Amino acid sequence: MTVYDIIEAKKRGRRLSEEQIAAFVRMVADESATDAQIAAFCMAVCLRGMTDEETFLLTKAMADSGERLSPPAAGVFADKHSTGGVSDSTTLILVPVLAALGVKCAKYSGRGLGHTGGTLDKLESFAGLNVDLTSEQFAAQVERVGAAIAGQTKSTVPADKRMYAVRDVTATVDSIPLIASSVMSKKLASFAQVILLDVKYGDGAFMKTARAAERLARLMVAVGTAAGRQTEAAVTDMSAPLGDNIGCNAEVREVLEVLRGKQNDLARLSCLHCERILRMAQGVEEARAAKLVHEAIDSGAALEKFRQIVSAQGGDTAAFDDAEALPLAPGRLIVRAPRSGRLHISAQALGKACAQLGGGRQREGEEIDHTVGILLKKRAGDRVAQGEELAHVCYREPRQEALALAQGAFTVSASFRARPLVHCIISKEDI
Amino acid sequence: MTVYDIIEAKKRGRRLSEEQIAAFVRMVADESATDAQIAAFCMAVCLRGMTDEETFLLTKAMADSGERLSPPAAGVFADKHSTGGVSDSTTLILVPVLAALGVKCAKYSGRGLGHTGGTLDKLESFAGLNVDLTSEQFAAQVERVGAAIAGQTKSTVPADKRMYAVRDVTATVDSIPLIASSVMSKKLASFAQVILLDVKYGDGAFMKTARAAERLARLMVAVGTAAGRQTEAAVTDMSAPLGDNIGCNAEVREVLEVLRGKQNDLARLSCLHCERILRMAQGVEEARAAKLVHEAIDSGAALEKFRQIVSAQGGDTAAFDDAEALPLAPGRLIVRAPRSGRLHISAQALGKACAQLGGGRQREGEEIDHTVGILLKKRAGDRVAQGEELAHVCYREPRQEALALAQGAFTVSASFRARPLVHCIISKEDI
Repeated sequence: MTVYDIIEAKKRGRRLSEEQIAAFVRMVADESATDAQIAAFCMAVCLRGMTDEETFLLTKAMADSGERLSPPAAGVFADKHSTGGVSDSTTLILVPVLAALGVKCAKYSGRGLGHTGGTLDKLESFAGLNVDLTSEQFAAQVERVGAAIAGQTKSTVPADKRMYAVRDVTATVDSIPLIASSVMSKKLASFAQVILLDVKYGDGAFMKTARAAERLARLMVAVGTAAGRQTEAAVTDMSAPLGDNIGCNAEVREVLEVLRGKQNDLARLSCLHCERILRMAQGVEEARAAKLVHEAIDSGAALEKFRQIVSAQGGDTAAFDDAEALPLAPGRLIVRAPRSGRLHISAQALGKACAQLGGGRQREGEEIDHTVGILLKKRAGDRVAQGEELAHVCYREPRQEALALAQGAFTVSASFRARPLVHCIISKEDI
Repeated sequence: MTVYDIIEAKKRGRRLSEEQIAAFVRMVADESATDAQIAAFCMAVCLRGMTDEETFLLTKAMADSGERLSPPAAGVFADKHSTGGVSDSTTLILVPVLAALGVKCAKYSGRGLGHTGGTLDKLESFAGLNVDLTSEQFAAQVERVGAAIAGQTKSTVPADKRMYAVRDVTATVDSIPLIASSVMSKKLASFAQVILLDVKYGDGAFMKTARAAERLARLMVAVGTAAGRQTEAAVTDMSAPLGDNIGCNAEVREVLEVLRGKQNDLARLSCLHCERILRMAQGVEEARAAKLVHEAIDSGAALEKFRQIVSAQGGDTAAFDDAEALPLAPGRLIVRAPRSGRLHISAQALGKACAQLGGGRQREGEEIDHTVGILLKKRAGDRVAQGEELAHVCYREPRQEALALAQGAFTVSASFRARPLVHCIISKEDI
């Protein structure tokens, strides 16, 4: 069985066997398949599709392509994954809340790219914080503190790393089976028994429609369930930024505010995610889960847990006492309402503007300016009066294109169609 | 316009503009597009297709990607291209016949790969013959002798060379627009005003059905006509070997026999091709063209012209006087009819068997044993009696798998459905 035959079979729209899929992934991992062959395979999958069964087999083979992580401690581990959004810092809220409630979080996170932010970048807003933990450091911290947040090591899921790098430059990213297998292979390679997936849709998300997001959510829940993990997915709105702040320091400031009781969509969604994970991990009732989550925040236990996590990873905790320890870039553009009416905010445009100002990455490996940020003064759907302040853009260099993009992200019109924050929940009963 | 955007557009099934196609080919030629991007593009074309207009634009851009060959002499130049078959030595017959009739042939040919043979390999059966002519040598010979047969230089159509190398390993060879643009880009880069395409179909051809071969033929004629060249295509049968001999020395022996008057399908098809080219090049009537071609052979003028061509390229012409100067490997397997009935011969199996015995190439760049060959004693469709000799396989090493493949290529059954040698002719009136 050659890689050529496997590409040919998928090109002809055939269903691949377990042996074919395993052989393909093996050849990707051991580099006997070339980048060109991976690209041809991925394009054939984009256009011919894959059954749920094939997607599961691909995911499993990819998860098995590298080192399988072993649990760092006894107990049930939870994981939450977002498909990426703008002003989405739910992980930094959810991990300390769950850890405060006794759900261990051994959280592997990623970095931001394009218009979306990344948890590791935000965490590094705490001066000195180390996200490159060895397996031993990681395990010891989870055992001692109840949670750790770090980057996955290079030896985890090498087949995914190669495939992703090829897909990124060959217009083969937006295949639902390929996205599902990429995300879920990393989950299956880890030891999380409880997995909550946040599949975003709308302007600021990779999935533009609720329908596509639902398909992806359903497929990932099917794959996780087939692999014996408790898996649920929330399909959530990403038409406007989730929180009020965009940019690393600005978002971490908001995380601390939410852990002190601030209420907004970011807080609401973080709490809903915590509740679903609690119910899966500890089998508690809906009402009790909500009560526990709110108590963890109201009592200050979650904030204290976050301080412990930051401290354990060597981060400076001064920001817990003084937000100014997370400085914002000195330049200011005040965006004002061009007329009166209902406010619309493009999450994607703001994410891109922030990245172009240096607050995010346009290409992998670029440095990030943590002080660049955008602070929303109004939310999407708000009624605004002409000339009213809508946002502050904090920049170091006044790059005109980026500032114009930020300005253009705000439009005002007579009407606004509100979307629910959570479009639907997919659990194993729905697949 | 990035290569990513162009791949994405084709993935979505969009029609590419002239600018997009030109940009893609430029990026292939200057190596700013990666192999992975070429593979993704080719797979998208395989599955989404291309319009005739897109195919023409792709062909033109590819032809322009390298050095354009200039005519080596004054006059009308003819070219004939076969999509590849088994025992297809028509070029070696056609070139001297046409040159004897005053049609100049500046013929660029290729090498054999897989089950199909290549003109350059066969020509090298003449000891000392040089197919690597410089442009100057080539031009001088065409001027002086009326014909030359050589390999294309490395700088001709570099975009095609890269694309073909990628397609070869990514299961993206069998796309009709990609085949048409690959073949025709090399024709457009040359100076042939008259082009005859022989599109083979059946067991021993790349196109398995007459319908697919017709589509390819029609598309290539459309592209050639749009580029202002006189182009016709013959869709011809390749279910059984065209001639009686397979293998370099064996096929050259048969070429000399045909030029001395031997009649069989190889001779018939070579003459038909010559007639069509004569009609395009000199505008002569059908009956007159046939008469001229037969006279060129009967008078010995074509044989003499072939001797001049071989001699001009430094080849030993001893074989013109003694066939033993083209030796056959000493090992013999006599294939006999397993029972009585009508004979079926698989061209593909015989082509593969010959290659596996060393008489062809399984991978590019391999050496060829010119003495390995297969001599048919019966033709497909013949009534044979049990035990009758069907073929001699001439080998140097008795590789069992290859010999079994050769043996298995011959089957006898009660019935035989004869196919016409020429399925149809496509000319510019048919597109």
